[in-house]
Amino acid sequence: MTSGLPRGGRRWRVAILGATGAVGQTFIRLLANHPWFDVVEVAASERSEGKRYADAARWLEGEMPQRIAGMTVLPTDAGRVTAPIVFSALDSSVAGDVERAFAAAGKFVLSNAKNFRMEDDVPLVIPEVNAGHLALLDRQRRERGWSGAIVTNANCAATVAAMALAPLHERFELDTLFLMTMQAVSGAGYPGVASLDILGNVIPFIADEEPKLEREMCKLLGRFDDGAVTPAAMRVSAQTNRVAVEHGHTVCIAASFRDRPTASLAINALREWKGAEETWNLPSRPEFPLTVTEEVNRPQPRRDVAAGGGMTVTVGRVRDDPVLHLRMVALGHNTIRGAAGGSVMNAELLASTGRLGAA
Amino acid sequence: MTSGLPRGGRRWRVAILGATGAVGQTFIRLLANHPWFDVVEVAASERSEGKRYADAARWLEGEMPQRIAGMTVLPTDAGRVTAPIVFSALDSSVAGDVERAFAAAGKFVLSNAKNFRMEDDVPLVIPEVNAGHLALLDRQRRERGWSGAIVTNANCAATVAAMALAPLHERFELDTLFLMTMQAVSGAGYPGVASLDILGNVIPFIADEEPKLEREMCKLLGRFDDGAVTPAAMRVSAQTNRVAVEHGHTVCIAASFRDRPTASLAINALREWKGAEETWNLPSRPEFPLTVTEEVNRPQPRRDVAAGGGMTVTVGRVRDDPVLHLRMVALGHNTIRGAAGGSVMNAELLASTGRLGAA
Amino acid sequence: MTSGLPRGGRRWRVAILGATGAVGQTFIRLLANHPWFDVVEVAASERSEGKRYADAARWLEGEMPQRIAGMTVLPTDAGRVTAPIVFSALDSSVAGDVERAFAAAGKFVLSNAKNFRMEDDVPLVIPEVNAGHLALLDRQRRERGWSGAIVTNANCAATVAAMALAPLHERFELDTLFLMTMQAVSGAGYPGVASLDILGNVIPFIADEEPKLEREMCKLLGRFDDGAVTPAAMRVSAQTNRVAVEHGHTVCIAASFRDRPTASLAINALREWKGAEETWNLPSRPEFPLTVTEEVNRPQPRRDVAAGGGMTVTVGRVRDDPVLHLRMVALGHNTIRGAAGGSVMNAELLASTGRLGAA
Amino acid sequence: MTSGLPRGGRRWRVAILGATGAVGQTFIRLLANHPWFDVVEVAASERSEGKRYADAARWLEGEMPQRIAGMTVLPTDAGRVTAPIVFSALDSSVAGDVERAFAAAGKFVLSNAKNFRMEDDVPLVIPEVNAGHLALLDRQRRERGWSGAIVTNANCAATVAAMALAPLHERFELDTLFLMTMQAVSGAGYPGVASLDILGNVIPFIADEEPKLEREMCKLLGRFDDGAVTPAAMRVSAQTNRVAVEHGHTVCIAASFRDRPTASLAINALREWKGAEETWNLPSRPEFPLTVTEEVNRPQPRRDVAAGGGMTVTVGRVRDDPVLHLRMVALGHNTIRGAAGGSVMNAELLASTGRLGAA
Repeated sequence: MTSGLPRGGRRWRVAILGATGAVGQTFIRLLANHPWFDVVEVAASERSEGKRYADAARWLEGEMPQRIAGMTVLPTDAGRVTAPIVFSALDSSVAGDVERAFAAAGKFVLSNAKNFRMEDDVPLVIPEVNAGHLALLDRQRRERGWSGAIVTNANCAATVAAMALAPLHERFELDTLFLMTMQAVSGAGYPGVASLDILGNVIPFIADEEPKLEREMCKLLGRFDDGAVTPAAMRVSAQTNRVAVEHGHTVCIAASFRDRPTASLAINALREWKGAEETWNLPSRPEFPLTVTEEVNRPQPRRDVAAGGGMTVTVGRVRDDPVLHLRMVALGHNTIRGAAGGSVMNAELLASTGRLGAA
Repeated sequence: MTSGLPRGGRRWRVAILGATGAVGQTFIRLLANHPWFDVVEVAASERSEGKRYADAARWLEGEMPQRIAGMTVLPTDAGRVTAPIVFSALDSSVAGDVERAFAAAGKFVLSNAKNFRMEDDVPLVIPEVNAGHLALLDRQRRERGWSGAIVTNANCAATVAAMALAPLHERFELDTLFLMTMQAVSGAGYPGVASLDILGNVIPFIADEEPKLEREMCKLLGRFDDGAVTPAAMRVSAQTNRVAVEHGHTVCIAASFRDRPTASLAINALREWKGAEETWNLPSRPEFPLTVTEEVNRPQPRRDVAAGGGMTVTVGRVRDDPVLHLRMVALGHNTIRGAAGGSVMNAELLASTGRLGAA
Repeated sequence: MTSGLPRGGRRWRVAILGATGAVGQTFIRLLANHPWFDVVEVAASERSEGKRYADAARWLEGEMPQRIAGMTVLPTDAGRVTAPIVFSALDSSVAGDVERAFAAAGKFVLSNAKNFRMEDDVPLVIPEVNAGHLALLDRQRRERGWSGAIVTNANCAATVAAMALAPLHERFELDTLFLMTMQAVSGAGYPGVASLDILGNVIPFIADEEPKLEREMCKLLGRFDDGAVTPAAMRVSAQTNRVAVEHGHTVCIAASFRDRPTASLAINALREWKGAEETWNLPSRPEFPLTVTEEVNRPQPRRDVAAGGGMTVTVGRVRDDPVLHLRMVALGHNTIRGAAGGSVMNAELLASTGRLGAA
Repeated sequence: MTSGLPRGGRRWRVAILGATGAVGQTFIRLLANHPWFDVVEVAASERSEGKRYADAARWLEGEMPQRIAGMTVLPTDAGRVTAPIVFSALDSSVAGDVERAFAAAGKFVLSNAKNFRMEDDVPLVIPEVNAGHLALLDRQRRERGWSGAIVTNANCAATVAAMALAPLHERFELDTLFLMTMQAVSGAGYPGVASLDILGNVIPFIADEEPKLEREMCKLLGRFDDGAVTPAAMRVSAQTNRVAVEHGHTVCIAASFRDRPTASLAINALREWKGAEETWNLPSRPEFPLTVTEEVNRPQPRRDVAAGGGMTVTVGRVRDDPVLHLRMVALGHNTIRGAAGGSVMNAELLASTGRLGAA
């Protein structure tokens, strides 16, 4: 990671909405020593409001940073949060109204929820994949009359698949795509999945996940042109499953392309991919956004999820498919790359491209 | 289950090869109170030969039947086993030579190994699906000059998929098929998968499983005609994964057909399916070879694997596919329906169709 | 199991309180084909009241009995439930008031909650261990002026330990006892333990469990005499842990006695134990309430929990202790023997001893 | 960690015996960037001899260090290994002869095996606990006529328990001790525990573990005096269990002392403990060898095993015991603190106390 401050050499004050939940905690961990951003406020639901953070949150992994532990939890209210940048870990049941209010009140909102992802004027961004989609913000602010803005990151499984496929789509253009996922329990938050439901078991269903995955893939791999994102013209079928894994979504992929690559051309494309140039110096950007493993039985969640500090997606088993062209397996960290870490990197991209302005 | 003895009203003496391993033990459990077959001999590798069965086997589930516990383990030698019918739980590394020798020596061999499955003159049988393939035996005995015979059952994951798809193939004719499996650790035998490899993990690879699955599907759903089985003319892509489940293989399926069914026509076809008439009175035949669940998040291994005593395959989430025609999830018990139980039912089919003759 | 009806040859109408939860469902399963009891009513909290049972309950294991599925869920109100016998699966937060009201209204209440267990006039019963404690009911009804009555079963871990120790206490009299438990997640109900808390983990704490275990052991093994139960005069230390097991509490035991037995005398005592004679013909009574295994690495939850239909406790590793006299490991099914099954057997004991009278 | 080189400012060449197994790999990881030691040779069994390390080892966690990957595996032969210091990850079935031969050949052997631990002239060392026991080496070399030496580390569970109890034993003197363990599967090496044995299960037995634990505790906490270690005069009872945890042994402890401490005095003693002064500047020494948690449900393997890089033992639930004086729960990393990391720190202690001399 580089840590030089962008442009003006200043740090930004940031707040976390939904700070007591699982994703909120991941934001706190990832931002604990961030070179550009200072967490100055934490907000959560009424139940937590006014309490010390340490009393309001049931901390799930490692040690709670001391500085955050002593903060008083604010209400999730745009009038009470003073930071100009807010990372939203809110559940989709409340994210719609709240994030809109924060954006209207002039905040930059980095959202993890599904609510705005598919809006025409809202960027759905994985920095290495489609940094250019941020250009939608001009239209968003103009059309909505917001002084702030909303930038969303993708569904956690879509993030893994889109990163694994972006280098191939850039060169060979996707035509048809089958995705089959095996998703970690942390994707459902805390308490989330009951142990009686998942110990020694598989649940072949995650509510609303398949349509999300199918439509987000097309937008993520779409092209920004003339003020709009044109979704990738491909057909996508996704089947999603929950498995007894703590962190790490595994995606089995089969795909065909307009221009059929051999497996070895595909591997080269994956290996050579550097991601959007705008991201090369971002603090959260891993040296390799993608790693291709040659082990025949990898990637595996337990052994590969921590690659690149949880920001690298690992791809393996790239081989010919007897029906389509290629098949492969991709794995990424669902709460880091697929959630909080993705939002942090989106904010870094806003900062480094000068979009945070005087925020 | 019916238990009336077929035809001549007699019981058959049977032996188990590879009796000390995981599949061998399942044979012993399933045959402990079988109405037609008496286990009179157990055979295993040299290490076990001559020992009491109770001393040679590390029993894995429930109680070891007393009668078997006291048997002396025989060598895996066609000259030493006197029973005319042998259930073979041998590993493929030795099954080829041994099963051939037993068949040549006049035994009916019910094989779980892959070695002979794809031979043109060897039936690969799931009784409800393709009972008629047994007719290959005439050719087998004639061409090979065997007085005995080999009947194989399918790979455990192929068995689950083929049962779930047989009713649809019969009516709508499969064209293209994607299979993605999440397979239980018991499929790898004992000791099999190391706990350090699978606790909280997924392994996206099972040696040699994908090609097996792809080619066996076509033979299983093929048609017997004029002395030969013509494989189903479809394209198949399979991806196989190991998950932290004890028993029960889950298969995510996407398929297209020559004649496109709606999801509701497909559900009807699955519900109405009775399987080959020859199987209706077999002792191991469950009342419903297939069950269609309406729960949105089923089938699940822990909750559905025991359906029909492990002989019923449960299908769920039958719905339209955005790329092909249909998708669905199937689950079956890998060591019962997908291994020992399948062989036992194959033997019952041999018996009830008069093929065991004077055996 | 015997199934002849006791005495008058009649069946009793019973109701289940808290019928939609995990323990309530176990009651429904165990009573589905009970020879003496008919489930005629199910009651649950306000949220479920008035719904069809099938719509109110998220069924956890196997198939929901058809007859129950169509019942309308009643409120947990003694005025609305007509059955004279109620099995209470209520949580301790509400069990106190509700069970008291039902008893006052003339119902026989079989309670799973902790609320009344330690009251001087309330029997805490494991039938094979202390059937005689039911005699407390005379005092209970007299002193409280109830026309009904409350009988409690013990904490699930205490049940396992008390059954394993009862034969030794009867012969050698316990003096000092160390218990260390590894308890299944089903002991915490549903949804209960979050998967993120227990996958690949151990939680060395269960709220309020250790004091419960320590004091219930003394009452369970106490003697009824002269209208009161005198607790066993022993010292008990318990440490309780939650592990990633679905069903089955394992208890490591170390104990000293007034009269020191050798390990082999202890094993004999365990083997010969038949439990209270009043229980020999009860329908839920397993042939062997205790089994002693000789396998060096047993009992194990996955392999032994189903012994005796979940009503048998398995004991193993009985051996000398270097500090006290003996140590051993006991295992039992926490939701069957340690909860619903225990209550059902308590009701059978009431019935067979004529205490249900004209109920 | 400090990284200043001790005394002479030189680095030592070291070799790893049993380098391809699970503990051997942990040595490689821990020594990859060690400030004092350079891994210059790896040795393993005949099967691996002569191969590249990368081809001989199935790497279990993270990335294999490049420098080691290319090394040629040597035979486990004192004549072929040139490094003066050898870390032995050998199994006890071969460690006896091999380690003796290396010591006789002038090597310093840091052993993980049980073979020599209980020999009167062999130090059994946890540096913070009993650094002084190294003084046994004079006697060892004199009596055995070795130019080299053997230093052993303790059984993994004994290490956790001894660290948690050392501060209390120093101040209050242990009298009686009950230990009940829940041990991770990695303690059994690789492939070790079969997944079919441990998924959703507990195994209440680990071969030979209980006597090891009982006797090593007394030696570890014994006093070096007048050329010999006098074992602590206490009675110990240990019960050991295997649970479905990857890394981290949890130990439930109950203890009495010559001088009874209150729980709060005990907590203070644990908190203030710094361990032997000789260890304060060792590179592998964590800032806090012991941490006392105040969370009511900690320590937990998944959440606490990585404390201090796996070298810190976490203690929790320190409270009065109803039979003895105190009870508490301790947790430590079995393959780091309890195996390879312990040996590395033992070697550092040898180095910093000048015992490696001209090695």
